Amino acid sequence: MAPPFVTFLSDYGLQDEFVGICHGVIAGICAEAMVIDLTHGIPRHDVRAGAAVLERSLAFVPAGVHLAVVDPDVGAQRRAVALAVDDARTLVGPDNGLLWPAAEAAGGITAAVDIARSRFRLEPLSATFHGRDIFAPVAAHLAKGVPLGEVGEPMDPAELVRIEPTVPRRDGDALVAHVRSVDRFGNLQLDAGHEDLAGSGLRLGRAAGVRTAGGDRRDVTYARTFADVAPGQPLLYEDSSRRLSLGVNHGDASAWLRAEVDDEVWITPE
Amino acid sequence: MAPPFVTFLSDYGLQDEFVGICHGVIAGICAEAMVIDLTHGIPRHDVRAGAAVLERSLAFVPAGVHLAVVDPDVGAQRRAVALAVDDARTLVGPDNGLLWPAAEAAGGITAAVDIARSRFRLEPLSATFHGRDIFAPVAAHLAKGVPLGEVGEPMDPAELVRIEPTVPRRDGDALVAHVRSVDRFGNLQLDAGHEDLAGSGLRLGRAAGVRTAGGDRRDVTYARTFADVAPGQPLLYEDSSRRLSLGVNHGDASAWLRAEVDDEVWITPE
Amino acid sequence: MAPPFVTFLSDYGLQDEFVGICHGVIAGICAEAMVIDLTHGIPRHDVRAGAAVLERSLAFVPAGVHLAVVDPDVGAQRRAVALAVDDARTLVGPDNGLLWPAAEAAGGITAAVDIARSRFRLEPLSATFHGRDIFAPVAAHLAKGVPLGEVGEPMDPAELVRIEPTVPRRDGDALVAHVRSVDRFGNLQLDAGHEDLAGSGLRLGRAAGVRTAGGDRRDVTYARTFADVAPGQPLLYEDSSRRLSLGVNHGDASAWLRAEVDDEVWITPE
Repeated sequence: MAPPFVTFLSDYGLQDEFVGICHGVIAGICAEAMVIDLTHGIPRHDVRAGAAVLERSLAFVPAGVHLAVVDPDVGAQRRAVALAVDDARTLVGPDNGLLWPAAEAAGGITAAVDIARSRFRLEPLSATFHGRDIFAPVAAHLAKGVPLGEVGEPMDPAELVRIEPTVPRRDGDALVAHVRSVDRFGNLQLDAGHEDLAGSGLRLGRAAGVRTAGGDRRDVTYARTFADVAPGQPLLYEDSSRRLSLGVNHGDASAWLRAEVDDEVWITPE
Repeated sequence: MAPPFVTFLSDYGLQDEFVGICHGVIAGICAEAMVIDLTHGIPRHDVRAGAAVLERSLAFVPAGVHLAVVDPDVGAQRRAVALAVDDARTLVGPDNGLLWPAAEAAGGITAAVDIARSRFRLEPLSATFHGRDIFAPVAAHLAKGVPLGEVGEPMDPAELVRIEPTVPRRDGDALVAHVRSVDRFGNLQLDAGHEDLAGSGLRLGRAAGVRTAGGDRRDVTYARTFADVAPGQPLLYEDSSRRLSLGVNHGDASAWLRAEVDDEVWITPE
Repeated sequence: MAPPFVTFLSDYGLQDEFVGICHGVIAGICAEAMVIDLTHGIPRHDVRAGAAVLERSLAFVPAGVHLAVVDPDVGAQRRAVALAVDDARTLVGPDNGLLWPAAEAAGGITAAVDIARSRFRLEPLSATFHGRDIFAPVAAHLAKGVPLGEVGEPMDPAELVRIEPTVPRRDGDALVAHVRSVDRFGNLQLDAGHEDLAGSGLRLGRAAGVRTAGGDRRDVTYARTFADVAPGQPLLYEDSSRRLSLGVNHGDASAWLRAEVDDEVWITPE
């Protein structure tokens, strides 16, 4: 029989002991859990980036307990929550929108509990490290089989904080998309997907134009993959999450276009 | 039944294969061990920082074998040791003070062995990678249940190298503390704790002054958590290890105060 | 009984979710696999560096499935392969030379299959993330016990892409070696080994000279380990893989010598 899975995403980084301590807390409660670190490299406090990464990752990992901590308001009044979603997954984290897009993509929330005063939290509760004191121990107890209703107080899912996703729009013959995230290679993932290409005039293997709000038009090739263009050349492509993305073969598209998260990008056909 | 736990802390970083190879060595000897990486981001050769992180981490991880390698004198005459401590934990690492504060905090050392010539070390022994050749294989055999007395030669714990911890002091109405570690967010953990606050005149929610040896007095708020001050504002707070710490909400206290590990910080009431 | 081992090496880094997603894919297929991350810090697209690290790591990790992804030509015509080698190991990765030195060191290839169209690959296949879509699922099925012949089409191992390793040479009284890799401490691993020292005139504990192609001769000590020279002093030593290496005690040899991967280094006796 498969062990209970716990995935873990955060902005804690790996320089300090924060992630290791959370692993220790989980192991002490549910030693049989298999903990998979999705990433701890979310930019500090960037709830929106964390939400995007969590959403696009879940489809590829086994259902289980999905712990996520990007928590700029730790210790303040934001709620801490555990959410059951349609496909047998449970999400655990701060109620700041981080969990919302993943929950929606996984079929929507079927039940929610407020875990701020969970009987499984560690005492004394710190004011700054709820990953250790609330989220990890609750996730571990859920992995151990404790029912959702026992880890916190029932709450109305309609009261959860939501992040409204950005959406691409039309501007004349341009598709205007937003940069959703930048990976360590400098590839820019946009909020436009396959469905936004209809009527865009873009044709695979042909040139397209891209520009930022204040920038000049630059030529890119609309290609299938990096190797379809020469080293150093930019390309527009559908990434592995089927989102339109901008890359530079063996290069850095973020530096090339001088674009960052949330920036708008105008894409025009040849 | 819970698997044997091995925690692993080092200054190896994750860029190279050092950590992965140690995991491989452990798995080859004791496949049932669950290895938890506390962190491998200790600043290179910083034994004092490694000791501080190990000490404050152990209370949150299950008892087991606790492997720690920050080893500037690898290959020289420093001893390699395994230590039994009061609460069923065993610590393994170089005898340079790294293990000392954690051993003290865990109740004190009950037995020590010198493992430099352990029969479990890998041969040929390298002169530069004792994590792979001595510490990991000894830790794995301990995790497998080999008694402490069989992994090395008995030695008198009184001969172990100690790190004397810094201690805060009074200077007029100021509490003078030392920076113990800096995390990746720039938060400065001090060596002063809750017990040092008595008579300090500090009051929660009120201003306090801080300065470094050569620096000007700067105002901070003595607060419970980051969200109690506005973004960009500094605060003095008790961190999750109950140590006094300096942070900047959504900012970097190390840059703000221009303070680093071992620097003295004067803290005065309003 | 030991679980099936999967080791994983890549240039994905840990900032993004690429590694975590591959772990998730493997866990979903073969939950009993123990996955050991060798490193994900290979410099981006540096197939030669990845091959060197994989080769020198394998001797220290248990036999199993060894997944490696440094894949600058993902989505192009390069093959994806799984290789059986003499000592019960199976290597999985792109056919660009990455696996070749490790396969040779492990005793040579006994069978090879092309897995580009493996029935175990994920669909829809992305053009940019074959770690997730081809390599991880094939590795997981091999770990689960699926025979090599069932994960792909048989191919002639003689057709595999090879990386010819650099070899040191003589130039007068100098041994001319190449920098094979640089670790995060700035230590330079050379392609010369113990066997190249015969007749070099180098004597342990004595001075030697080193220079790069365009650089001046600099003195180093030929020593056993870092602690044999004073802090800040350079040394030539046999590293833990028994390769000649250049280091600076508590310093950075790459910066000191201004040398990088593939650079030639002239080594002369006292």
